[in-house]
Amino acid sequence: MPEFFNVLPPAEALQALLDRLETRPAIPATEVPIDEALSRVTAQETHAPEDLPSFPRSAMDGYSLRAVDTFGASEGLPAYFNIVGEVLMGRQAEVSVSTGDAADAYTGGMLADGADAVIMVENTQRVDAKTIEVVRPVAVGENVVQPGEDIKRGEVILPAGHYLRPQDLGGLTAMGITDLSVAAKPRVAILSLGDEVVSPDTAPAEGQIRDINTYTIAALVEQAGGIPLPLGIVRDDIEEQTAAAIRGLEMADALVFSAGSSVSSGDMTAQIIGNLGQPGVLIHGLAIRPGKPTVIGLVDGKPAFGLPGNPVSAMVVFDLVVRPTLYHLSGCANPPQPTTVAATLSQDIASTSGREDFVPVRLKGEDGHSTAQPVFGKSNLIYTLIRSDGLIRVPLDRGGLYAGEDVLVRLY
Amino acid sequence: MPEFFNVLPPAEALQALLDRLETRPAIPATEVPIDEALSRVTAQETHAPEDLPSFPRSAMDGYSLRAVDTFGASEGLPAYFNIVGEVLMGRQAEVSVSTGDAADAYTGGMLADGADAVIMVENTQRVDAKTIEVVRPVAVGENVVQPGEDIKRGEVILPAGHYLRPQDLGGLTAMGITDLSVAAKPRVAILSLGDEVVSPDTAPAEGQIRDINTYTIAALVEQAGGIPLPLGIVRDDIEEQTAAAIRGLEMADALVFSAGSSVSSGDMTAQIIGNLGQPGVLIHGLAIRPGKPTVIGLVDGKPAFGLPGNPVSAMVVFDLVVRPTLYHLSGCANPPQPTTVAATLSQDIASTSGREDFVPVRLKGEDGHSTAQPVFGKSNLIYTLIRSDGLIRVPLDRGGLYAGEDVLVRLY
Repeated sequence: MPEFFNVLPPAEALQALLDRLETRPAIPATEVPIDEALSRVTAQETHAPEDLPSFPRSAMDGYSLRAVDTFGASEGLPAYFNIVGEVLMGRQAEVSVSTGDAADAYTGGMLADGADAVIMVENTQRVDAKTIEVVRPVAVGENVVQPGEDIKRGEVILPAGHYLRPQDLGGLTAMGITDLSVAAKPRVAILSLGDEVVSPDTAPAEGQIRDINTYTIAALVEQAGGIPLPLGIVRDDIEEQTAAAIRGLEMADALVFSAGSSVSSGDMTAQIIGNLGQPGVLIHGLAIRPGKPTVIGLVDGKPAFGLPGNPVSAMVVFDLVVRPTLYHLSGCANPPQPTTVAATLSQDIASTSGREDFVPVRLKGEDGHSTAQPVFGKSNLIYTLIRSDGLIRVPLDRGGLYAGEDVLVRLY
Repeated sequence: MPEFFNVLPPAEALQALLDRLETRPAIPATEVPIDEALSRVTAQETHAPEDLPSFPRSAMDGYSLRAVDTFGASEGLPAYFNIVGEVLMGRQAEVSVSTGDAADAYTGGMLADGADAVIMVENTQRVDAKTIEVVRPVAVGENVVQPGEDIKRGEVILPAGHYLRPQDLGGLTAMGITDLSVAAKPRVAILSLGDEVVSPDTAPAEGQIRDINTYTIAALVEQAGGIPLPLGIVRDDIEEQTAAAIRGLEMADALVFSAGSSVSSGDMTAQIIGNLGQPGVLIHGLAIRPGKPTVIGLVDGKPAFGLPGNPVSAMVVFDLVVRPTLYHLSGCANPPQPTTVAATLSQDIASTSGREDFVPVRLKGEDGHSTAQPVFGKSNLIYTLIRSDGLIRVPLDRGGLYAGEDVLVRLY
């Protein structure tokens, strides 16, 4: 039986679910090569096996030398240095400098033995083939990347639960790490419910419509780094739906029911989730519009969601509840943030205090000076979502928004 | 020979390149199934082959009836209707209503023949098994989704050049479209240059470093919807680099040189691009920091980029120039926008008017109330990018930014 049964704001509903997910990450780790690691989530903390760079590198084209020999040098009173050789790019220093010596240095190349600074070529003058004059002093370490300055041996490269960005991959290859342990992608079983729903590759008879939500939800799962497992269309029959749900939970880490359109289908979803395992239904109803008839449950450690059948609601609830749950399952501490654009609202939006409203908008105008025009389509129309650019949110404590207000549009 | 040779702001430099790309899209189309179409770019305009919905659908649970029969109905003076049957979900209406008749209707189900409105069950009272009373009037079309209300036959579903979002896929399957023509993913050949660079799977000798940029750039290409073709490390030899570039241009739609660290390597890249084909180098140098020593060219219709060798510069320039070029090649009219967060700058940043500066920052605090803390690491350190969350931009016409200013952080 349901443990509690309440209409909650989405953030509280999400927290109620996450608090009950006992293990984190819930998803096992897998090893991937670096070129498959983008947008994956690290499964363990990685430490630097060595200093980067491993040798003192010149940060400029110029000459490596002993800084002390430049002290007091000026345009009026240059210091003179003997060029004793050069350090080629990618080569170990085979030249060493003592007092009054300098060696040709290239950006990224190793300093000559005995050198502790680099003078930029712009601050020198060639006197002859073997001599330069230096017209300003350099400090010890100036224009040098010290060993370990990028990262020191033993330092944490990346924590566990880190969402991998392009630069993170570069930081790993710099350390010689070409394979790493990441959370497996969460598998999400998707059931599309309803006697009226037929497969997109069939011609619907009168009274039928083709499946929309399986494809929209599968794409949302993919965007959130998961693997969608579409289980097809299941008619409004509690036994068939229960059987499909059991199969889904066996195959997947989470289960999404896309409800049929009729009011009673949400209740059937709650009943099925309640019967599948413990603790069952946690939330039945969110304090949002659209999206109220949402069911959130937990079945023996696996999240189960009953999303409303209409497309706008399904997208809103996926964003607020399902997506963060998928990142949580992977143990992700820094999931990618939604893309938002600041805009000015073009007309009043009425709402009701005590409920969060989400309204599709179309953006007009340029970046940073955009106008958000509400699209008051019915939320059961998929083309309301296609003809709009994103959603604005009317907060719980507001009775509406006014034309001219600054709003943040969450793009989709 | 180069046609012009100038230090330009990045937006102008990009435009100079895009203006010379003659065909758009430059990338051929390919057919993909709908479950591989997410984040692809449509190659042609698609029209609705039929009305959606194809039949009048009830938007509520209640009764379908003739609106005219409800006119004047109120709590005090209800109208009475005979229930003549029901229309089951997913079924053609097998019942018709005349004056004084009503039929059970379910959300998403078809209206009974002869009905033009639906009264919500909440506005009715059951009198007996065959009779209801209706306590308020409904207008013609009320609580009905009309045929073609979502989209009409012949209307544009999606234009050409449209970046496909989850809901777009749902809109296509609703129309029975399960395969579609999209731009092929742009292939980007990546050359990592430098005598000092070795493969990540080898132990660098003193003076050598492992390849970073191939992996960072490959991941950036992947994020931008392209296919990275890493061609490996090429040493600082103009003939070897030219041969590798020719091979890259044969295989790919665009070419990226990741320069070696030394100053002269950028010049070599420009020389190679200049020799490869027409018109050759368009831009040598951007009015930005970091990222100034960038080369942008066009070789017989294919863009070629010489990115600076240091990681921060490479990322900045990729974002400003390479990514938009890749979307342009696909003909994409609505590329995904960068993710930004509004924040308050924690300390002054000095810059120079006439140049755009990009400064890595770390975000502290919660969304919407974040503080951006500049990370003044050297731009040749990859861990500067790993230890930061995004970039802020000091505009061309500003000499710096002040602590306490509102800034927009472009997350990476």
